[in-house]
Amino acid sequence: MMIPNLQVALDNNLLSDALRSASVLGNEVDIIEAGTILCLQEGMEAVRCLRALFPEKTIIADTKCADAGSTVAKNCAEAGADWMTVICSATIPTMKAAKDNIEEVQVELYGDWTYEQAQQWLDAGISQAIYHQSRDALLSGETWGEKDLNKIKKLVEMGFRVSVTGGLDKDTLELFKGIDVYTFIAGRSIREAADPVKAAREFKDEIKRIWK
Amino acid sequence: MMIPNLQVALDNNLLSDALRSASVLGNEVDIIEAGTILCLQEGMEAVRCLRALFPEKTIIADTKCADAGSTVAKNCAEAGADWMTVICSATIPTMKAAKDNIEEVQVELYGDWTYEQAQQWLDAGISQAIYHQSRDALLSGETWGEKDLNKIKKLVEMGFRVSVTGGLDKDTLELFKGIDVYTFIAGRSIREAADPVKAAREFKDEIKRIWK
Repeated sequence: MMIPNLQVALDNNLLSDALRSASVLGNEVDIIEAGTILCLQEGMEAVRCLRALFPEKTIIADTKCADAGSTVAKNCAEAGADWMTVICSATIPTMKAAKDNIEEVQVELYGDWTYEQAQQWLDAGISQAIYHQSRDALLSGETWGEKDLNKIKKLVEMGFRVSVTGGLDKDTLELFKGIDVYTFIAGRSIREAADPVKAAREFKDEIKRIWK
Repeated sequence: MMIPNLQVALDNNLLSDALRSASVLGNEVDIIEAGTILCLQEGMEAVRCLRALFPEKTIIADTKCADAGSTVAKNCAEAGADWMTVICSATIPTMKAAKDNIEEVQVELYGDWTYEQAQQWLDAGISQAIYHQSRDALLSGETWGEKDLNKIKKLVEMGFRVSVTGGLDKDTLELFKGIDVYTFIAGRSIREAADPVKAAREFKDEIKRIWK
């Protein structure tokens, strides 16, 4: 089993706030994400700035693209993103169009999706998926449960590299023990910690402890 | 039956191109949309500029929001958008969170959705939906058919104000005759016409001819 990556989601409203977090955390994490909120607020300038500051890091534009896959992917790639996200309800032609124009595409799993669809994504050459607890679901009291873990396991068995996100902190990692998670995505739990670097290192240490 | 609105979708890559189209077409149409491509490229500055130029028009931020509904809606409203879009695969808490922070929310119908879900959107106070042929589906040869028209009719019967979009030009309007469409959304067919103002006026004239 591989050691899962740690990804920081920069879901800031302001580019300057995102860059403040990135300057502190960028070298502590494996993957830097320009979050949807940031992309919608600041546009692809946010990705360009992250690429300028971190020329060697994997950078993701979390566009949750639903249509016009080709144009959105070209724009993300031109701005310097390695990967981008598409929403699971996008059509296969949209996903393929995106995939043809950027290195990798990740499918964001929201709402109702089926394993038949997931197989179509694999058949289209897309082998990354992101499993969420949505922020709004968490706010309304939902939490990680057995049904989530079983879905993640099944996706991994199908051949997906699965990123996991939503209300994660180092104390919730144990839940995923024994599952070949590709990446854990953390946002505010490290960005807004009193000591973000310490929080990121503890998160990584806990990943290593559980998955080594 | 009401006369359907005409909405121009500004799906430009550059703010300056979007503003060039808006300056020509803004007063010809009923609703101005900052398209997803434009929002992702230029951020909410695009909405702020459109609001500055058209203080009285209905302006939509086509964010296709999938999560963090409250933050995205606040950001759209602060930038000057009247309405925003959410993706149909967003959870009900996300949609409600968005609705609580902006005047109106429109559900973008992509992929598989059900009338049971649609009823949940209505129950959550969301009564606008956008029915698409996705750009990528159109590129791969799909077109408007009876199944699309039946779905639109059913949504209207349920109580939705339905906007229709995807490869529309004035010659395709006749297809929707007899259906209480709320808004037709046109993009390149008017924006990239040799004479955009003429194209918009012909589109509106054809709407009036069919729906009066």
